[in-house]
Amino acid sequence: MAETPVGIWFVGARGGVAATATVGLAALKQGLLGTAGLVSELPAFAGLGLAEWTRFVVGGHEIRGVSLPEEAARLMRESHTFDRELFEQCRAELERIDGRIRPGTLEKSGPTIAGFADLDLPRDKSPRHAVERLKQDLAEFVESEGLGHVVVVCVASTEPVAEPTDVPLRWTELEPLLESAGKCPLPASSLYAVAALESGHSFVNFTPSLGSNSPALDELARACGTRHMGCDGKTGETLMKSVLAPMFARRNLQVMSWVGHNIFGNIDSRVLDDPVSKRAKVTSKDHLVGEILGYRPQTLVSIERIESLGDWKTAWDHVHFRGFLDTPMTLQFTWQGCDSVLAAPLVLDLVRLTELAYRRDHVGLMPFLASFFKSPVGVDEHRFDRQFAMLEEWALGG
Amino acid sequence: MAETPVGIWFVGARGGVAATATVGLAALKQGLLGTAGLVSELPAFAGLGLAEWTRFVVGGHEIRGVSLPEEAARLMRESHTFDRELFEQCRAELERIDGRIRPGTLEKSGPTIAGFADLDLPRDKSPRHAVERLKQDLAEFVESEGLGHVVVVCVASTEPVAEPTDVPLRWTELEPLLESAGKCPLPASSLYAVAALESGHSFVNFTPSLGSNSPALDELARACGTRHMGCDGKTGETLMKSVLAPMFARRNLQVMSWVGHNIFGNIDSRVLDDPVSKRAKVTSKDHLVGEILGYRPQTLVSIERIESLGDWKTAWDHVHFRGFLDTPMTLQFTWQGCDSVLAAPLVLDLVRLTELAYRRDHVGLMPFLASFFKSPVGVDEHRFDRQFAMLEEWALGG
Amino acid sequence: MAETPVGIWFVGARGGVAATATVGLAALKQGLLGTAGLVSELPAFAGLGLAEWTRFVVGGHEIRGVSLPEEAARLMRESHTFDRELFEQCRAELERIDGRIRPGTLEKSGPTIAGFADLDLPRDKSPRHAVERLKQDLAEFVESEGLGHVVVVCVASTEPVAEPTDVPLRWTELEPLLESAGKCPLPASSLYAVAALESGHSFVNFTPSLGSNSPALDELARACGTRHMGCDGKTGETLMKSVLAPMFARRNLQVMSWVGHNIFGNIDSRVLDDPVSKRAKVTSKDHLVGEILGYRPQTLVSIERIESLGDWKTAWDHVHFRGFLDTPMTLQFTWQGCDSVLAAPLVLDLVRLTELAYRRDHVGLMPFLASFFKSPVGVDEHRFDRQFAMLEEWALGG
Amino acid sequence: MAETPVGIWFVGARGGVAATATVGLAALKQGLLGTAGLVSELPAFAGLGLAEWTRFVVGGHEIRGVSLPEEAARLMRESHTFDRELFEQCRAELERIDGRIRPGTLEKSGPTIAGFADLDLPRDKSPRHAVERLKQDLAEFVESEGLGHVVVVCVASTEPVAEPTDVPLRWTELEPLLESAGKCPLPASSLYAVAALESGHSFVNFTPSLGSNSPALDELARACGTRHMGCDGKTGETLMKSVLAPMFARRNLQVMSWVGHNIFGNIDSRVLDDPVSKRAKVTSKDHLVGEILGYRPQTLVSIERIESLGDWKTAWDHVHFRGFLDTPMTLQFTWQGCDSVLAAPLVLDLVRLTELAYRRDHVGLMPFLASFFKSPVGVDEHRFDRQFAMLEEWALGG
Repeated sequence: MAETPVGIWFVGARGGVAATATVGLAALKQGLLGTAGLVSELPAFAGLGLAEWTRFVVGGHEIRGVSLPEEAARLMRESHTFDRELFEQCRAELERIDGRIRPGTLEKSGPTIAGFADLDLPRDKSPRHAVERLKQDLAEFVESEGLGHVVVVCVASTEPVAEPTDVPLRWTELEPLLESAGKCPLPASSLYAVAALESGHSFVNFTPSLGSNSPALDELARACGTRHMGCDGKTGETLMKSVLAPMFARRNLQVMSWVGHNIFGNIDSRVLDDPVSKRAKVTSKDHLVGEILGYRPQTLVSIERIESLGDWKTAWDHVHFRGFLDTPMTLQFTWQGCDSVLAAPLVLDLVRLTELAYRRDHVGLMPFLASFFKSPVGVDEHRFDRQFAMLEEWALGG
Repeated sequence: MAETPVGIWFVGARGGVAATATVGLAALKQGLLGTAGLVSELPAFAGLGLAEWTRFVVGGHEIRGVSLPEEAARLMRESHTFDRELFEQCRAELERIDGRIRPGTLEKSGPTIAGFADLDLPRDKSPRHAVERLKQDLAEFVESEGLGHVVVVCVASTEPVAEPTDVPLRWTELEPLLESAGKCPLPASSLYAVAALESGHSFVNFTPSLGSNSPALDELARACGTRHMGCDGKTGETLMKSVLAPMFARRNLQVMSWVGHNIFGNIDSRVLDDPVSKRAKVTSKDHLVGEILGYRPQTLVSIERIESLGDWKTAWDHVHFRGFLDTPMTLQFTWQGCDSVLAAPLVLDLVRLTELAYRRDHVGLMPFLASFFKSPVGVDEHRFDRQFAMLEEWALGG
Repeated sequence: MAETPVGIWFVGARGGVAATATVGLAALKQGLLGTAGLVSELPAFAGLGLAEWTRFVVGGHEIRGVSLPEEAARLMRESHTFDRELFEQCRAELERIDGRIRPGTLEKSGPTIAGFADLDLPRDKSPRHAVERLKQDLAEFVESEGLGHVVVVCVASTEPVAEPTDVPLRWTELEPLLESAGKCPLPASSLYAVAALESGHSFVNFTPSLGSNSPALDELARACGTRHMGCDGKTGETLMKSVLAPMFARRNLQVMSWVGHNIFGNIDSRVLDDPVSKRAKVTSKDHLVGEILGYRPQTLVSIERIESLGDWKTAWDHVHFRGFLDTPMTLQFTWQGCDSVLAAPLVLDLVRLTELAYRRDHVGLMPFLASFFKSPVGVDEHRFDRQFAMLEEWALGG
Repeated sequence: MAETPVGIWFVGARGGVAATATVGLAALKQGLLGTAGLVSELPAFAGLGLAEWTRFVVGGHEIRGVSLPEEAARLMRESHTFDRELFEQCRAELERIDGRIRPGTLEKSGPTIAGFADLDLPRDKSPRHAVERLKQDLAEFVESEGLGHVVVVCVASTEPVAEPTDVPLRWTELEPLLESAGKCPLPASSLYAVAALESGHSFVNFTPSLGSNSPALDELARACGTRHMGCDGKTGETLMKSVLAPMFARRNLQVMSWVGHNIFGNIDSRVLDDPVSKRAKVTSKDHLVGEILGYRPQTLVSIERIESLGDWKTAWDHVHFRGFLDTPMTLQFTWQGCDSVLAAPLVLDLVRLTELAYRRDHVGLMPFLASFFKSPVGVDEHRFDRQFAMLEEWALGG
């Protein structure tokens, strides 16, 4: 079994994160790249028997018609995150992968995302029909590539806020609703999740969209003997918060206000110009500080689209805190990171660790992956160091 | 025994840190102050039976003639860290404490520190004579105040670098050298330590000076059945390093360079204008990053005296790191903290925790206090979260 | 005539700016204060014969009942901008001034400002009645204090956006509308202006409110042989913009985006929480960059209320620009200034320079004061250096 | 005459600044590049009849053997300041220029610069012999390319500090000293200047080295009917100082301290690791603030080599100033610019403006170019706006 190929199925397969992950994976397979940014390559995890990079085969769903090599070339030109030489060495692989990308679904994705869709997408009669079509795509991927297991990873654009509370708590109640678009509360991200889980594959939600984040889908995952986790990859400013807030807490430095301004200009920022999508993101970025501190200072998170920055997200945070003698003091930081370059290796790490969880017969939520997420489902612990200890414990104790 | 007063003996009792701690303690005793900045007041440590603030009595050694209320008034005016109302409510207590301050020693403190001395200091015939005089001061403090135990805390100015390797490894070899100033390698901070330990009291070194940081003095501590720890309080920029460096390590983000510029203008900064004293401080601030990361990026630490800033230390750090696809990214932070206000509560915490260690019959080094120090003696762990876990473990498991 | 007292009449006389200016003026009169922050005290203006500080007498309008000494004490406690000693030395003067403060008007000030009003304000039957009442207050001030000229300065809270285009262009058309609240488009700030101008006094609008910013009121000013200027004092972030944008222009560094985030927590910030008031302010802060550069980069200005900051406004600006070879580069700055302390001396300077303009028989707009304003009425020049040259030219050539 | 080619002779022709200027010029000639960063392309200077880019021909002196295309390729790879496509379009031109580069001289350049020399440099018997050799190179350049005038621009590495006072004030006294290396106080940069001026060409010193910065060389320039200017291009942090310091002065905001930390990693930074070279640079960067303000606040300038940053210079400045009521406030800025990309267009602008000065028969120093320099020789005005006005006046009044 060690030699069976493992599938990675990207929802949003031609987006910036998937394209960067795909280029990086192609380079890793050819030994062209170091391990920077890859958590699963840390010495601590060396003895786990994680799958080699060469075993992974990539496919995915997408709603846009741009080709994967074109998207990668755009990233190269605009973000300077890899050079032409590397791109040329990966181009053939990118073309092969592009051939495996299938049209996705826009179900309840909102008008902003729909505006990006330039593929001729199939008109599914009902959410259930959509799910069956997506499952068929996965089955053909498994068949044609001779895969054992597939990890489906959602890296598509942020959907408008969907309240988990709108979704029935039990799968038995939710399942019949899939028969009618009018009654079904599930957005596209959740339909991909259903397709993955019903196919016995793993599902990872790297976005703040709903995905598998509901008790009913967890029930489905457990019923299908598979696993899932989310949501919203913790890449930059929020990572900093989950690292700094515990410092303030442990030193009893009382945070009065924490302001975070984020500016960037990639396609994700265009989605976030839609206020409902932005709310999903801001909520996901904003709750940590209060949860870690145990009280609620005034917090403010803004995300603004500044086109000239492209994929380079700049965050300025201003933390106003009170120390001994109630003296106010200040910490400011500026984080300048390339969004897709921060996200892509985490996606690959999640796939690799999830594949190990599959081999370890883990079923249901994967709380040990909490350190990768802004809003880890089912996990109250938001301190990065404790989340990381959970990962080490699971990995080494496995 | 719960009612016996506990002594705090500050070496550098009229300096900014001691003055701030003293004002704060006086305010705490009167219930005038919240708990901000006090680690020992965290809910996690609520059930430990730490001594009440009202039980502490303060005295100390000093080489400067300015009175404690004068020094506190200067802090109030220049740093705005507390207001006149609080000062007036504490003035009587400050005057009482000032009456308990005794002249210290300048042994091997270097010309910069000697330049501050405006007290008529006794001329001790030998380091041993100095130690005996200091012990006599401690004994009178215990006697006059009816104290049980005393925690001696060094918060004096940074001495010129003294290499621990110049000091014989065994107390039996070191002790005879105290008879002659010419042969004895110990600076003032270590003589205070010897005095404390030989008196059976605890010694805490909050400065980068040598203090008890040598195997011979550890041997002495253990022989006397007492305890000690150091060195160099971790208050601001270095605290940030011990919190952020583990993040880079755990995300496999490879730090290429870490630059830290510190500017401030208090009396400590005047001592650090002396290059040999500065070297002691810079070394203490600089080693962490490499030790936490497990490799040595280019690091630079500068500390410069900017008079207008007074006690308000501003640190700018620039971290240049490499992520996936070897993409370079940047984190910058600016920390604006009041040095004495950051240090003072930690000093009070250390006294309280050390007093508990005394009641728990702990002997020798106190590695569980590592999270308070830039260079915790005998501890290789520099990650703040792990150091804090050591404290919790000791406290709750004690 | 050199000895005749000069009146300063503050609209918003108990607000932060007026209180700070009043304390500062009282201190200047007693020789307790240096000249920092006062433009009119620059050596370049030494020979102009500007009125001595001792000649000024303060009164004003207000809608809030808090006393002036109370407001000043609050600033002292919260912002640490002056100490208790200075406050006590000025208290008697503050009390005298408080006795001269008269109830203002809330005409079209919007619900947020109305919410602050806790004085029992007279119910004026029409805007014209209000104007007559305000004029009566001014006349009594002149009478009781034996004043020659009065400079009325609006430092009240920002009113909701009023479009100058809603106001008839000719005074003859506008004047009749004052008879009916329903028909009159003028907000409170403009009624104060009418009262000042019809009384032959000077009017200076330090806020983004409408004030005298309309051709009809300019016509009135000229008809009355008096003078006026506005609007919106240029104190911090916008001052920086008017200094830095010309640098980019002169070096042909092409600004792609300019983001400015402002956070602060004083009463002004509460007014700006009202979106229509905020729009007035943001518009005033945002137009400069494009006007100076001659093209319109993407700009973003946010102003957010962060209570813990009080009067200390922190602005973070991120300028993304393109240099030779179209290389993108970045300038970031953080400005940490105390709003009222930045504004107050400019208000005093404006009074002093306006009084000189009165003696020089200047009538109409005062474009030579452009350097003091974010949106100088009638002036297209936004480069600070050129605006300052206009001031020097007028002053020295006068 | 309008069609005669104009020579640009770079001293340090394969260094980062020259290579960037050369690539840029090649691109401008082909119409591949916009005008960003080029002052001489501002609309204000459109009608001056400045020479077209196509008229310029490049040659130069160098001490290193790396080829110009290699150096340009290194910049492309390390600094991402232009892409491979542009590079390939300019490669043939770079190769042609490389063929015109002649070996320079190391006279009194110090051991650090000498350590970079890997060309087999001629051993000149005396400074005079060196000068004659350099003149011969210029003459051959003029001859072979059919040039009218040549502008020699020094963009070589910073030499160790040379005190202008060591140089005799009169050319008649200095000239004989050139016969003996032992007696001649002139470093390499000045020998290039002598060669240029004696040949009747113009000399521009873009570095802090001595160059033509002495009365004796100015006398020579005037005797030869030619022109010269320097020194030290004002590109980033110092440009900011010359823009911000006037703001503080004009607002009477009293600067207490101004700290500037610069980090970067290019070859220039390696030269500046040599303390004597660094002193030349720091002095040049540090004097402005005091000269603009008219008083001397505490200033600190540090320049540190951080290899990972390459050509990307990051400067953090912290300005601590006092406003009204003596309230201390803070401005911080971070400038992230690419050094050679900031410098190169200014070099091209200087060449173009100097060529115009040649056609306008300007002789001696060119004070109207002051805005381009940190330390403009013979000019006391350091305010950027006033310096720029000097340029406009000369240009438009010429």
